[in-house]
Amino acid sequence: MSNPTWILARGYRFAGLRCGIRTDPHRKDLALVVSDPPAAVAGVFTTVQITAAPVQVSRQRVPTNSARGVVVCSGNANACTGERGLEDARRMTAVAAESLGCRAEEMLVCSTGIIGRPLPMQVIEPGIRQAATQLRSAPDALDDAAHAILTTDTKIKVMTRAVTIADREVRVSGMAKGAAMIGPNMATMLAFVFTDARVDAQELQPLLRRVANRSFNCISVEGHTSTNDTLLLFANGASGGELLTGAALEQYEATVANVCDDLARAIADDAEGITHLITIRVDGASSDTDARRIAKTIAESALVKTAVFGADPNWGRIVSAAGYAGVRFQEQDLSLWLGETLLYDHGTPLPFNAPAVSAYLKQNRDVDMRLTVGGGPGQCRFWTCDLGYEYIRLNAEYTT
Amino acid sequence: MSNPTWILARGYRFAGLRCGIRTDPHRKDLALVVSDPPAAVAGVFTTVQITAAPVQVSRQRVPTNSARGVVVCSGNANACTGERGLEDARRMTAVAAESLGCRAEEMLVCSTGIIGRPLPMQVIEPGIRQAATQLRSAPDALDDAAHAILTTDTKIKVMTRAVTIADREVRVSGMAKGAAMIGPNMATMLAFVFTDARVDAQELQPLLRRVANRSFNCISVEGHTSTNDTLLLFANGASGGELLTGAALEQYEATVANVCDDLARAIADDAEGITHLITIRVDGASSDTDARRIAKTIAESALVKTAVFGADPNWGRIVSAAGYAGVRFQEQDLSLWLGETLLYDHGTPLPFNAPAVSAYLKQNRDVDMRLTVGGGPGQCRFWTCDLGYEYIRLNAEYTT
Repeated sequence: MSNPTWILARGYRFAGLRCGIRTDPHRKDLALVVSDPPAAVAGVFTTVQITAAPVQVSRQRVPTNSARGVVVCSGNANACTGERGLEDARRMTAVAAESLGCRAEEMLVCSTGIIGRPLPMQVIEPGIRQAATQLRSAPDALDDAAHAILTTDTKIKVMTRAVTIADREVRVSGMAKGAAMIGPNMATMLAFVFTDARVDAQELQPLLRRVANRSFNCISVEGHTSTNDTLLLFANGASGGELLTGAALEQYEATVANVCDDLARAIADDAEGITHLITIRVDGASSDTDARRIAKTIAESALVKTAVFGADPNWGRIVSAAGYAGVRFQEQDLSLWLGETLLYDHGTPLPFNAPAVSAYLKQNRDVDMRLTVGGGPGQCRFWTCDLGYEYIRLNAEYTT
Repeated sequence: MSNPTWILARGYRFAGLRCGIRTDPHRKDLALVVSDPPAAVAGVFTTVQITAAPVQVSRQRVPTNSARGVVVCSGNANACTGERGLEDARRMTAVAAESLGCRAEEMLVCSTGIIGRPLPMQVIEPGIRQAATQLRSAPDALDDAAHAILTTDTKIKVMTRAVTIADREVRVSGMAKGAAMIGPNMATMLAFVFTDARVDAQELQPLLRRVANRSFNCISVEGHTSTNDTLLLFANGASGGELLTGAALEQYEATVANVCDDLARAIADDAEGITHLITIRVDGASSDTDARRIAKTIAESALVKTAVFGADPNWGRIVSAAGYAGVRFQEQDLSLWLGETLLYDHGTPLPFNAPAVSAYLKQNRDVDMRLTVGGGPGQCRFWTCDLGYEYIRLNAEYTT
């Protein structure tokens, strides 16, 4: 449902509709977002070896200071589709550009859904043309676009902010879709952040990399990376004012980071079969990278995830996962809290009220694990979900 | 059950008994194995940051040419037990040495079981003394020892071989316990290979590292490494003859590798909640290391494991896991077989009879995945298990 309190970044128009990629007649499957002024765009893409065609096309076009928008289809990922896939991805941008009166190279493209099948261009092309006629700057148009990019998500993810930077109001509108996978659908993570600040693309690209490392790269559902993961950040300057630099640029980065944090958390919170959202906080590592490695290793341990599902305050699984993360620390520097309860203090397990900690796990959908591993400056906040019967049911069904 | 066809390496005596570490009165929990001639010993240990006390003690004592045996307790891992743990581990070797008339430093020590609690030395010390009086070279004594090292395993793992090397019969007797974990019990992987060849410890150590990389390092149940994992290889020279070198040493290595392969497979095959043993074969990588990285990434994908549980021939999950393994290859060089069926051919998904491939998964406990990723010499054979409801049930139970 669209929300009238959403803040819309200036200069962007949105559309989302059903063109017929999906079989479900109630599901939208095509989104178009356009920036009326040419926008700076940065992109962060999947790091996997096999990338989908739209990733290959979009990656070549960013960073840029002259993008006009992005076209997204859901229901078909256009992955593992060879040369035909590349032609189709380029064609999607060309059809959008034609409808908008810009060059194909000024448009970006994403796809998400089943892999290994060619795109049904006979419905996508007219769908793009129709979407171009429906573009509007309105919450319900953003809502349509946010719905049109979903696959196995149970709800849309939209996060917006307004902040005053250098005496001007800068608006940020973000939308995303989730990371879990079902059947042959590779439910890619896609995220789009539209801002009306004025930022040069050469600044925007490293900024987005830093933001991604602390937000979308700090969630894990099952550790299975998609061929299509894409994060795009637009800055079209419609807020007016000078190019952001220095402290103003830092303030802008913090705002974009806030929106990306919220989107990333929403993705983890909508994981398949989830009964607990787990927040893992690691402090005292030598570096943020080390802290993230420890947090990610804990987050991806099936034993830790099943323990939370079973309300088992099993400090041994958490401590041992930290121990095999490949990061050097001293055992006597390691402490662990589950919620507010200290279970393991500087290398020594403590006696604790196990039923009380189990009750904490049972009674809270959102649970916290906190570790300190030394006195270093490195820290990380990581989100993951538990692992229970419903995940198995959803993912073991015979789907082909 | 002991097996009269087991081949016993010469010069070794075995014992296994219940000393009372475990609460279950029917479970043995202490094993002692002694080599009458001083033996060369090599060791490969857990790579995790936090290691249990017995690992710290044993690691300092290998490689050596003058070991006399190993004492193992199950039910308590002597991990996360601080300085007291180190004293207890050393004390176990001292008590064994005293009973055998050798030096403490000539004995090695392992423990497996719950972590974070001190060893009950008041039962372990008399247990070791009693075991020393029961040592015998007989299949049922090996059987006792093989039972005494188990934790959550459903059966013992014993593999033996005899082979003629340089005109002499060399005998190899191996035993192991499994890698899955339940509750606070960290079911460490322990493996012991007793041979009567004559090999220098300086040769034995790199040999064992190579063997481990292709056997025990090519299995995965849940990717959760223990604080206690230990593999020890003994060579006591009781076969007679010269020190093995050159082609004879290579033949010895191949025999040890065979036994370790069989033990590793037996561990994967006894994983908690298993309904399928999955063999993943990767060929054509640049190196064996790259091939193993691809196989391990597939083996540890929850999506791949649930797909096999659900009899879903989901090539997309397997191909995408290969793609995020962090190994460079060309998409058009990747092919995938499930059983005998080619699903993905040089970067292109093929049409295939999905119900027939699903039936292959349903009807076979042991299933094969085969991938080629190029024309390189690197290869790997990796074992893992599927992921189903029973794993969740076993691991989510409230245990503390």
